[in-house]
Amino acid sequence: MIIIVTGMPGSGKSKIVKEFERRGFPSVSMGDIVREETVKRGLELTKENVAKVSIRLRQELGQNAVAKLAVEKVRALLKNSGVAVIDGVRSLDEVGTFRGAFPDERIVIVAVHTPPKQRFERLRARGRHDDPKTWEDFEERDWKELRFGIGGVIAMADYMIINDGSREEYEKKVGEIVELILTSNPGRA
Amino acid sequence: MIIIVTGMPGSGKSKIVKEFERRGFPSVSMGDIVREETVKRGLELTKENVAKVSIRLRQELGQNAVAKLAVEKVRALLKNSGVAVIDGVRSLDEVGTFRGAFPDERIVIVAVHTPPKQRFERLRARGRHDDPKTWEDFEERDWKELRFGIGGVIAMADYMIINDGSREEYEKKVGEIVELILTSNPGRA
Repeated sequence: MIIIVTGMPGSGKSKIVKEFERRGFPSVSMGDIVREETVKRGLELTKENVAKVSIRLRQELGQNAVAKLAVEKVRALLKNSGVAVIDGVRSLDEVGTFRGAFPDERIVIVAVHTPPKQRFERLRARGRHDDPKTWEDFEERDWKELRFGIGGVIAMADYMIINDGSREEYEKKVGEIVELILTSNPGRA
Repeated sequence: MIIIVTGMPGSGKSKIVKEFERRGFPSVSMGDIVREETVKRGLELTKENVAKVSIRLRQELGQNAVAKLAVEKVRALLKNSGVAVIDGVRSLDEVGTFRGAFPDERIVIVAVHTPPKQRFERLRARGRHDDPKTWEDFEERDWKELRFGIGGVIAMADYMIINDGSREEYEKKVGEIVELILTSNPGRA
């Protein structure tokens, strides 16, 4: 089973990925793949260099470059535990790349939704160096994701979690959904 | 307040629109606008003619043709009750058209999410003449919506309702959310 975890920036996506990891199912991060490629090309890990490599990869390998580079990592996870969690899929085209590479594997999309205003407040409070400080920054970052087509992945989710309440409520929901998915198709953690 | 109701085919979108109408807030249907234009142009109301007029409208008035035609109807509803519900918005570009036409009006997006397999089962059971009979028909219809960019509208929803349980559960949730929205900004129904 391939589990694709998706959600807009600041929605709480990483909590879902971490819950799978806590239960013994590691993930492949699409963002890490671009960062690894940046290092491989002898570039410093700055926001600008990562963006540059992300564009170059797409010129070299096509729109689904990152998904293509993820395939071998996904294959290794599937071989190991029967479950591969993928963090950071941004378009249904990328989902199609995984579908094509693993035609017999069940693919499940898990999305988390948080209303934009709450995502903005959370990202601003988090204050990671690349997090938005203003509403304009926030909208620009959202648009970057939306242009890739992340909305399509969210719209086609098999499981949707709403994260608009307390952290405890959300953690409870995540635990329940992860349990439900793993029970429907248990791996070998 | 402008309330944009969105959701994939078979998700349960019309239930939300009907709940607003039941409380005295009529809606503007983007689909009806295209059907009215089809009749105005002396064409019979067939699926093919409606699709043709939909394409022609976009050639004549641009990608947001239907939203542009909806603006006057929205203005009339706002004048009448202070609330305009819009059914069938398919892209953030269309949302932008309403934002541009009503810069001082609060705009709220309400989305409903149902997992694809459940939507397919519901649409097949409904069996309206244009409802999908096979999974391939279903995917094709989904793609039509996704190409317009409906995923972006769903991803940016201020209120998200999950409709994956019983009809009664869903009706209860819809009632609560509609109440919440109207209380946050009461109209004059």
